[in-house]
Amino acid sequence: MGSFKGHALPGSFFLVAGIWWTGKYSLWHATRRNKNIGSTRLASRASQRRLEILESSVILFFSFVGMLAEQFVADGPRLQLYDFAEKHWEHLMNWQHATMYLFFALAGIVSLIIHTTEAAPLAVDRLMLAIAFFNEGFLFLYHLHGRTMLDVHVHQLLLYAIFGGALIAFLEVFHRGNIILELLRCTLTLLQGSWFWEIGFVLYPPHGPEWDMTDHNNAMFVTMCYSWHLAFAMLVVSVLYCTISCVVHSRLKRTPPMEMGLLKPRERDPESEDEIL
Amino acid sequence: MGSFKGHALPGSFFLVAGIWWTGKYSLWHATRRNKNIGSTRLASRASQRRLEILESSVILFFSFVGMLAEQFVADGPRLQLYDFAEKHWEHLMNWQHATMYLFFALAGIVSLIIHTTEAAPLAVDRLMLAIAFFNEGFLFLYHLHGRTMLDVHVHQLLLYAIFGGALIAFLEVFHRGNIILELLRCTLTLLQGSWFWEIGFVLYPPHGPEWDMTDHNNAMFVTMCYSWHLAFAMLVVSVLYCTISCVVHSRLKRTPPMEMGLLKPRERDPESEDEIL
Amino acid sequence: MGSFKGHALPGSFFLVAGIWWTGKYSLWHATRRNKNIGSTRLASRASQRRLEILESSVILFFSFVGMLAEQFVADGPRLQLYDFAEKHWEHLMNWQHATMYLFFALAGIVSLIIHTTEAAPLAVDRLMLAIAFFNEGFLFLYHLHGRTMLDVHVHQLLLYAIFGGALIAFLEVFHRGNIILELLRCTLTLLQGSWFWEIGFVLYPPHGPEWDMTDHNNAMFVTMCYSWHLAFAMLVVSVLYCTISCVVHSRLKRTPPMEMGLLKPRERDPESEDEIL
Amino acid sequence: MGSFKGHALPGSFFLVAGIWWTGKYSLWHATRRNKNIGSTRLASRASQRRLEILESSVILFFSFVGMLAEQFVADGPRLQLYDFAEKHWEHLMNWQHATMYLFFALAGIVSLIIHTTEAAPLAVDRLMLAIAFFNEGFLFLYHLHGRTMLDVHVHQLLLYAIFGGALIAFLEVFHRGNIILELLRCTLTLLQGSWFWEIGFVLYPPHGPEWDMTDHNNAMFVTMCYSWHLAFAMLVVSVLYCTISCVVHSRLKRTPPMEMGLLKPRERDPESEDEIL
Repeated sequence: MGSFKGHALPGSFFLVAGIWWTGKYSLWHATRRNKNIGSTRLASRASQRRLEILESSVILFFSFVGMLAEQFVADGPRLQLYDFAEKHWEHLMNWQHATMYLFFALAGIVSLIIHTTEAAPLAVDRLMLAIAFFNEGFLFLYHLHGRTMLDVHVHQLLLYAIFGGALIAFLEVFHRGNIILELLRCTLTLLQGSWFWEIGFVLYPPHGPEWDMTDHNNAMFVTMCYSWHLAFAMLVVSVLYCTISCVVHSRLKRTPPMEMGLLKPRERDPESEDEIL
Repeated sequence: MGSFKGHALPGSFFLVAGIWWTGKYSLWHATRRNKNIGSTRLASRASQRRLEILESSVILFFSFVGMLAEQFVADGPRLQLYDFAEKHWEHLMNWQHATMYLFFALAGIVSLIIHTTEAAPLAVDRLMLAIAFFNEGFLFLYHLHGRTMLDVHVHQLLLYAIFGGALIAFLEVFHRGNIILELLRCTLTLLQGSWFWEIGFVLYPPHGPEWDMTDHNNAMFVTMCYSWHLAFAMLVVSVLYCTISCVVHSRLKRTPPMEMGLLKPRERDPESEDEIL
Repeated sequence: MGSFKGHALPGSFFLVAGIWWTGKYSLWHATRRNKNIGSTRLASRASQRRLEILESSVILFFSFVGMLAEQFVADGPRLQLYDFAEKHWEHLMNWQHATMYLFFALAGIVSLIIHTTEAAPLAVDRLMLAIAFFNEGFLFLYHLHGRTMLDVHVHQLLLYAIFGGALIAFLEVFHRGNIILELLRCTLTLLQGSWFWEIGFVLYPPHGPEWDMTDHNNAMFVTMCYSWHLAFAMLVVSVLYCTISCVVHSRLKRTPPMEMGLLKPRERDPESEDEIL
Repeated sequence: MGSFKGHALPGSFFLVAGIWWTGKYSLWHATRRNKNIGSTRLASRASQRRLEILESSVILFFSFVGMLAEQFVADGPRLQLYDFAEKHWEHLMNWQHATMYLFFALAGIVSLIIHTTEAAPLAVDRLMLAIAFFNEGFLFLYHLHGRTMLDVHVHQLLLYAIFGGALIAFLEVFHRGNIILELLRCTLTLLQGSWFWEIGFVLYPPHGPEWDMTDHNNAMFVTMCYSWHLAFAMLVVSVLYCTISCVVHSRLKRTPPMEMGLLKPRERDPESEDEIL
């Protein structure tokens, strides 16, 4: 069921998602702040929309791949849910993981629809993301029956990042475009990603000795380790944000001032999503 | 005490309520968005009010029927609460269910009063709904003593939908007319309805073998099943919303443009409830 | 330690407070809504302030009486906290109750200062009330060690009303003058008051047989009873609110229309506290 | 591991921080309220910024000292985390405490950067403070395994103040400059500080007999004691706030009225941070 790879893969996805989102929101925020220097080229409404569509497609694609992988790996259920002969459920773990991917796929589809058509309010994409995170945490919560102490503990710590992400995404439904909430969600996504890697290393050490699953000192170390992962995620987000801010700011300063006269078209093309919502 | 019918009936009511609300809010939101094409005929303030009165009456009626049914079914308490001869409480389950219906009846009465007279602020109807949901969840919470593991588990899962609905209805007191919150409440109501059916099938399978009430694999399957119900409820709400949006939009486009000159009366007849609140 | 009177007394105070607050907020809201008919006489800013000062003084007085009573009743601690001879704490229950009264006294003092001077923002009185409720619930929470099942259960139910009241009062810090929150707080205060009486009847039945403290059916009945108390509190608040609204409305209609010309002074004397905050 | 000093030291830091913050926010609020009498000298934007930079540096310095102390005290880990010879973790307590300090150091660094450059939105300093408090509470939460009843209890009570502080700081991200939230955070910080001292006295009584760690009466007394600490913290904050308000008000009144003509420069120098955010 579980394996090192099985934790490293979703971990990598969340790490990439966290970094990508940090870059995206930092760029948009930087261009919005520097409006008066003329930065509309960098992040016009149309290019923002194209970016969102691209992102949604990628999420959709990988969620789909994830679902297929959970079903058709070597010891997967191959879409069979119940073994009527032996009267037991088939590979419930894989089915649960596939269900987690399903909700991210749904979030991807809805986001795709929202940004290609005008069918629904923009904020629905954050709601779907919140539901996807919540569903992930919900399934993990009832996932831990009968495991060893340390195994339960590392997964419980994961829940902080997951439910935290769900809460922040839900708040974003009402405070869309708030850079602080956005970066906080990025941080929690990065934390989730790196913690998946950590879980892999703790439960299935690729080399070196096994961990003692019942030693309370190990649990205490792992708790502290979680704080360090959080600090690390905050560091990555800060560095990315500052770099992008500086680059945008310096590049915009270098542009010739005569561009100042060309600012009018921007009025027809509002940057901040807040006003549109 | 419990039976298949006893779960299917409230389940059906919540399913109908969820679909009805989805339709109502989608229609109102669609007409509000298309204000500038002249859609006032479809959802004028007066017709909205008539609809609310109708809805409240129906809720009131069925809550009343529910209360009577719980009291006067074959093995019901018939309004007798305590058996002084044998010194024990009579049919506490039925009394608790009747109490749940009572709060929905109260919500119906208050909503009726609010929409026929000007006695109280509009938002009180959402508050009463939140209290009705909360009370339902509160009674279920202390309802589960001494049952089998799976029985407790399926009812605990139900609490997510119930308390979630209560929370969203409470948020609507402050954000009335927010389509996202409204549709989220519809989704949770649908989820509650379909989950009542699922509980019926799990605890009282109408045909086929009984479930093993202590098997942890069954609990894990049921948890995943809850996610699928949620996904299904989200699907139903999305499809309904999109259909109604498209129909309203296309129908309004077909109306002759000369209607545009008749838009003035709308000023006296504000659509969005937000401004009135 | 506990007795029927010891629960009936605070119960009566909360009942009176709930009814008083319902009347006060209903009156103010009714006069605010009917501003345009000229109702300033009934609830001018100055008379509001006088009412608040009166209320704070009464709260302060009774909290002080409560503290003294807890200390100097027949078997009270008489300000002695620790018995150094026998090395044990003296009457911790009484001390805890006195501490609860202390926080309501503090809320009274602060409210008195705020409404007589301009020393602090108005909203602080709600914050102090929230803290007083929270402190009451906090002490009850750690009050229940080693009691019988039913005893613990009835006190746990009380916590819903107490912490609910604290939460609503805290929300009022940010949404001052929101009639829905105010009436909800009144409802929860009434519920708390009537539930104190119920606890007295259950734990110390003044006549009739003792309750079986370990029977789960009793717990189930008591839970349902709590819902009925809530419904009753809602009924009382609704009836009071509607009566006062109608009386204010009808009395204002009877006043001669020439008063309309005298409305100007109101501009210097804003009614709604919201604008002042 | 634990000692009287080890609790008195952080306690003193939090006490000083609570008093300092109370003074700072009271002063700023008083000058903002008395804007129209001409108080800009006392708290101009530039001097505010200088104060913030000073404060951040001090926090940073003491967090750094704290980290070093935890590492290099007599029986500290001296940066060694794992003893490969004996295969056990080295002084995990000290490492955890150092991690707590680390997050306050991070909050200090970020606050320093925000107030010296324009790199990030102002509200990030409150977010970092919220995260630092949350991290402290998070580590304490998983810190209590296998301790005696009273030891666990006094640390659990501490969590109220810590998580309360984290929540209020998070709310300040959205309601910056709200004096009520600011003073509430000051109160909780003072409470935390004085409670650290109390923990020291209870667990490591410097003179006098040891406490019985399993006596439930002691737990009850300690709970009540927590309420008294809260009342005391509220008293200190109130007295400080009122004193500073009066001093600012009376001093501003004494300034000659001709200053009124010099008020114009203030327009270029907005006081309230709210508008800038």
